[in-house]
Amino acid sequence: MDQRVLVTYRVRGEAAAIEERAAALAVEQSVEMPLAAIDARHVLDDIVGRVVAITDRGGGVFEVAIALAAATMRGRHGGEAGQMLNMLFGNSSLHEDVVLWDVALPDGFAPSFTLARQGIAGLRRRLGIARRALTCAALKPQGLAPAALAALAGRFALGGIDMIKDDHGIADQPYAPFAERVSACAEAVEAARSKTGHPTRYAPNLSGSLDDLRRQVDAARSVGIDTVLIAPLVVGVPAFQVIVRENPDLAFLAHPALAGAARIAPALLYGKLFRLFGADAVIYPNHGGRFGYTPETCRAIAETARAPWAGLTPALPVPAGGMTPARVAEMLAFYGRDTMLLIGGALLAAGASLVAETSAFVRQVVESSDV
Amino acid sequence: MDQRVLVTYRVRGEAAAIEERAAALAVEQSVEMPLAAIDARHVLDDIVGRVVAITDRGGGVFEVAIALAAATMRGRHGGEAGQMLNMLFGNSSLHEDVVLWDVALPDGFAPSFTLARQGIAGLRRRLGIARRALTCAALKPQGLAPAALAALAGRFALGGIDMIKDDHGIADQPYAPFAERVSACAEAVEAARSKTGHPTRYAPNLSGSLDDLRRQVDAARSVGIDTVLIAPLVVGVPAFQVIVRENPDLAFLAHPALAGAARIAPALLYGKLFRLFGADAVIYPNHGGRFGYTPETCRAIAETARAPWAGLTPALPVPAGGMTPARVAEMLAFYGRDTMLLIGGALLAAGASLVAETSAFVRQVVESSDV
Repeated sequence: MDQRVLVTYRVRGEAAAIEERAAALAVEQSVEMPLAAIDARHVLDDIVGRVVAITDRGGGVFEVAIALAAATMRGRHGGEAGQMLNMLFGNSSLHEDVVLWDVALPDGFAPSFTLARQGIAGLRRRLGIARRALTCAALKPQGLAPAALAALAGRFALGGIDMIKDDHGIADQPYAPFAERVSACAEAVEAARSKTGHPTRYAPNLSGSLDDLRRQVDAARSVGIDTVLIAPLVVGVPAFQVIVRENPDLAFLAHPALAGAARIAPALLYGKLFRLFGADAVIYPNHGGRFGYTPETCRAIAETARAPWAGLTPALPVPAGGMTPARVAEMLAFYGRDTMLLIGGALLAAGASLVAETSAFVRQVVESSDV
Repeated sequence: MDQRVLVTYRVRGEAAAIEERAAALAVEQSVEMPLAAIDARHVLDDIVGRVVAITDRGGGVFEVAIALAAATMRGRHGGEAGQMLNMLFGNSSLHEDVVLWDVALPDGFAPSFTLARQGIAGLRRRLGIARRALTCAALKPQGLAPAALAALAGRFALGGIDMIKDDHGIADQPYAPFAERVSACAEAVEAARSKTGHPTRYAPNLSGSLDDLRRQVDAARSVGIDTVLIAPLVVGVPAFQVIVRENPDLAFLAHPALAGAARIAPALLYGKLFRLFGADAVIYPNHGGRFGYTPETCRAIAETARAPWAGLTPALPVPAGGMTPARVAEMLAFYGRDTMLLIGGALLAAGASLVAETSAFVRQVVESSDV
């Protein structure tokens, strides 16, 4: 069997040298040795990368399409996330002139990874919201003790927010150990839910090794949590894949920390790879905030995350990074309603009027989504 | 307690805006919210990042030194590798204009991670080589069955090489399952050792999740292996840290795949962070090979890996990536003898005369090191 993953790279270079450069890239990401020294016929036929197309994109940039053997990305349990990234971009990530641009999978390959099991539909179901855009706030700052974080979570929930995520810097530090703070936050949110009647979810941040992730999932489940936050590139994609596989009933929000998306096309990383490895929702920096993505990049991320791809459940786009309630209408006009709006610092800055500001944010989303 | 990790970033920007940019960076990598909205005194004092110095490096580049709270990088067992990278560069890796440049640790922080336990001395001890530079070859291509890989390994060992590492693309694929190929290779190397009398080591590549790593370590140990290859950024640094912690008697060679070192200064990533998380030897692309590092970058990597830092055992520099026997003398003149020379494809290209070529490579290293 000779299944191929079609990988597209964008390469800066000169027209005269691009064919040779493309051939070298195909070797680098497959056998990484001189082809003349390979005498095994099946390796040359079935394993060595093949240049399929070279397209001049102008401005000294070429799109190089290479067919890599899917077999090189498989482990004992089917597709293996770490090994896939390794074969897609392991050594070539060290080349300044190469960006990993896109990937197309052969039939039947995606299901051997981890299917995103909750996706947009699963998130909407647990929040009881069929149509409108979703809202999200962030628990910060790290350094607060569990009781203080729980008090904040309770107030966000009283404001009627849909989702409360931990700041991605909140891990399992001694000043706020995971089990203790998650239990306190879950209790505070539950108390608020019984007042508002709205099924607000609290998504704690998972971190550390696979052992830590498993222990944290157990602790979270024990207090009724069904949605979590995780940064795939911080915990490592193999651990991300396994924890998702082991917990198909949990919903996973992916955080972009360490995404180094400067070298991997953002739409590919968030919209496809994070989804393939198990994300139900993908958080990314929106344009016009604290980060430099352009509107085009952001639109590509959102559209890619929601588009049919490899039979995977769509993932919910979560634009974030310095957003404010004043931008709600504009963001919903840009992204549409299959979106979760995440506002962190701007809500926390409300201080004493946090509940009222949260409530106003939620109301605005409800009204803008109804249009 | 207010221990601080001193982090240096290189930021491209305008002189007029750099103070504001530095302050924003200190907030981004600590509490990630408006300081005005924080009323907890201890968070402002002990957790928020502090700009310590801004130095104009010329050409529109500024060096910004920020003191981050060590406490934010701790988990249940002390320093946590994933959380450390997260706090050093999590969100800021998304900023095109920032490079993570260097890190200085407070007293007592490094021992709470994983000390590199074998280091240069441990590697020299198991290879029985006190002074000269070390030699390394690579098993390729992936796609070969265990018996074919083992035959190659045996021939490298007959040539008297010190270390044989798997290609980093060789994982646990169905065409060469880990346990089977590692056992076959170990046996072939052992057979050659009994002929040459030289204690050649075979370092299989660990990959996958922490569960996979543990299973692979067990399989490797069961056939007498005491040295392994691992790509920290492929398996994820938390898993890397744990597997090193659990196996202090193994030596770990770190592979640079996915290093994305374009955004993290190479000397910091290979020479300090990989070492802090557990590497005994660090493989990196040498200048003048298939990758674009300059001689200055390569020298900085090697010197940093060997220099005293945070009380850690020195790590062995392993320049690689398209090296040939013809470069041995030049490389040893450049790097000195506390170095392992890794030649992959160029030895494999020797085909029928692989043993002789390997032997000539080894002899050259012996002679060049004696100078």
